[in-house]
Amino acid sequence: MSQTPLHYKDVSSHDFAGQLYQTAADCRLHLESEQELLAPAIAYETYGQLNEDKSNAILICHALTGDQFVMGVNPITKRKGWWDEVVGVGKAIDTNRYFVICSNVLGGCMGSTGPLSPHPSKKGVWGGDFPVLTIGDMVRAQKLLIEHLGIDQLYCVVGGSMGGMQSLQWAVLYPDCVHSVVAIATAARHSAQNISLHEIGRQAIVGDPQWHDGFYANHERSPQHGLAVARMMAHVSYLSESALHRKFGRNLQNRDSISYGFGADFQVESYLRHQGSNFVARFDANSYLRITRAMDYFDLTNGTGTPLKEVFVGSPVRFCLFSFSSDWLFPTQESRLIVQALNAAAASVSFCEIASDGGHDSFLLHIPEFHELLHGFLDGASSHY
Amino acid sequence: MSQTPLHYKDVSSHDFAGQLYQTAADCRLHLESEQELLAPAIAYETYGQLNEDKSNAILICHALTGDQFVMGVNPITKRKGWWDEVVGVGKAIDTNRYFVICSNVLGGCMGSTGPLSPHPSKKGVWGGDFPVLTIGDMVRAQKLLIEHLGIDQLYCVVGGSMGGMQSLQWAVLYPDCVHSVVAIATAARHSAQNISLHEIGRQAIVGDPQWHDGFYANHERSPQHGLAVARMMAHVSYLSESALHRKFGRNLQNRDSISYGFGADFQVESYLRHQGSNFVARFDANSYLRITRAMDYFDLTNGTGTPLKEVFVGSPVRFCLFSFSSDWLFPTQESRLIVQALNAAAASVSFCEIASDGGHDSFLLHIPEFHELLHGFLDGASSHY
Repeated sequence: MSQTPLHYKDVSSHDFAGQLYQTAADCRLHLESEQELLAPAIAYETYGQLNEDKSNAILICHALTGDQFVMGVNPITKRKGWWDEVVGVGKAIDTNRYFVICSNVLGGCMGSTGPLSPHPSKKGVWGGDFPVLTIGDMVRAQKLLIEHLGIDQLYCVVGGSMGGMQSLQWAVLYPDCVHSVVAIATAARHSAQNISLHEIGRQAIVGDPQWHDGFYANHERSPQHGLAVARMMAHVSYLSESALHRKFGRNLQNRDSISYGFGADFQVESYLRHQGSNFVARFDANSYLRITRAMDYFDLTNGTGTPLKEVFVGSPVRFCLFSFSSDWLFPTQESRLIVQALNAAAASVSFCEIASDGGHDSFLLHIPEFHELLHGFLDGASSHY
Repeated sequence: MSQTPLHYKDVSSHDFAGQLYQTAADCRLHLESEQELLAPAIAYETYGQLNEDKSNAILICHALTGDQFVMGVNPITKRKGWWDEVVGVGKAIDTNRYFVICSNVLGGCMGSTGPLSPHPSKKGVWGGDFPVLTIGDMVRAQKLLIEHLGIDQLYCVVGGSMGGMQSLQWAVLYPDCVHSVVAIATAARHSAQNISLHEIGRQAIVGDPQWHDGFYANHERSPQHGLAVARMMAHVSYLSESALHRKFGRNLQNRDSISYGFGADFQVESYLRHQGSNFVARFDANSYLRITRAMDYFDLTNGTGTPLKEVFVGSPVRFCLFSFSSDWLFPTQESRLIVQALNAAAASVSFCEIASDGGHDSFLLHIPEFHELLHGFLDGASSHY
């Protein structure tokens, strides 16, 4: 009985038509691992106009597999930007009013310095030699970009999931450089369950015959199947059981009855295979390993055992948190722990749990209630500016 | 940077010291796929004594990766039987009172006919040629064993998870041969989310370089890494977020600080790798594919769209269902749908949701409240016998 393999498109090198901030040749970004990155580049996009006193800049931080192409058409995928629901003229984050910045995270694969970048001392790309990063490292790279743009204080840093980790990290590292922070569907530290899910995805990748210990580029191959499996698993974790039931149930895919085989009998299987196959055409396995690891390592208290409130004491930042009722990856309880710590530190904090059956991905979906509240917070925060 | 691979023990062929029912040479088991298995063998264990009128037999159905070694020491793993908490002298299923039978499912790898069995017409084992099975096929094989043991009616069929699917299937296929059924942490049909999780596990397996389209035995290899990844993922789905947090949190494994690498920095990673590695020493990848597929295909209404209550109308069987509050794989709602259908069919049904943070695996754990209720149901059901 033949097992149906996943099918992949050829992975071609992306054409990064966007903006790139190439730091000076002697710029050394010191990483938390004690390694250094010399002259890192940061790929980014901006939307709207920076006002004269540079007080209307919003930094959006993308999630694990996101990129800098927030709205409009993504030039790589030719599909809508990942937050086109939220960012644009007249939308929750109104580009008529705000100057929106989004950069590809350090270690990513959409133009910022990462495993696909040339190795500084060897032939070819960094590949498996690229250092392991932290969320703090990503934020320090973003800070270089913000300085380059001449902005002293961001009006807001906004992010969901890993983007929310970065926005919280901004408030802790640079409290005087951010007026407000919106952290959506996130946590103050990655949970044991989420570390587990990431570790499984990584094991799927390193078990691929084309992994070559991370140096697959030297073989002109990549661990596509392993990366697709990692993506399929992650994708399921981004949805809710009820959304999967509503969308797919046990519907069969292009057939009237089960095949007694291992093809994609069910629509949900076909959908997941498609998600996996599409993903490998736009993502790099070494980036996936490093970005998941950065999330695993994320802990605002740095594993010191200090109560979380300590990191927020005296913070001038205005915080706003959102969670979604059906999100089992970053459940509401994770947001509540942050809200409690912020309250205990007498910081300014708003919080809302949005009712949605969309799971973790809710922050990307068309949910008017969420968008109105986000808009309202950004609007209201200006009265304190 | 070196990625730590998983380590595996050698897979040695198991010594099946247990009981084996070898059906007659002309016995043909007709499968739902329209294929036939000639002279299937069923490996099983029994505990306690069958009474004179053969009215005290309880069939226990094992879950996906379970086996026939319910209590005492498992001769393969040298560890406690998987339901030693529940089955034994003076326990919830009291072997002083009941004659307990458990057989390895058809398609399994613990002695019953499955992919490791000799191919009927080719050299070597079935391997990738072994047919895809259904839960109904497994139950029909169990029926052959029960007939062989001379038992006309089982006092009870009990099972959790996939075992619960089998127990429900017994009630539907052979209502006059079962006095009562206990279905624990299960569902009347496999959900879209659970089909997804199985499909991801199967993709991990078929992507392993040692998969060889299921004919790995011919190469004296097996897709160990892929099977380990599938197991790691399944294992996480059997636990709850809070249990993972309670057991492991973000504790580091044998180190004081993170390594900025991809070793098992966290205890939970080390634990999962261990789970994956141990599993491949006792399980066959072809069996894993077929048993997960049987669960995916499970739907008591056979995809007909008939209301579930129809399959229970007129059933003389006494049902008892259990769910666990933190089980997100087979959530309480799945049990409720069955209870509602049984009530609508005027069948006899008891139901209890047990408060536990142990997730799906709760049915295997030491939970006295659950065990007392199970004991009570078995005790009480006898007054109607």
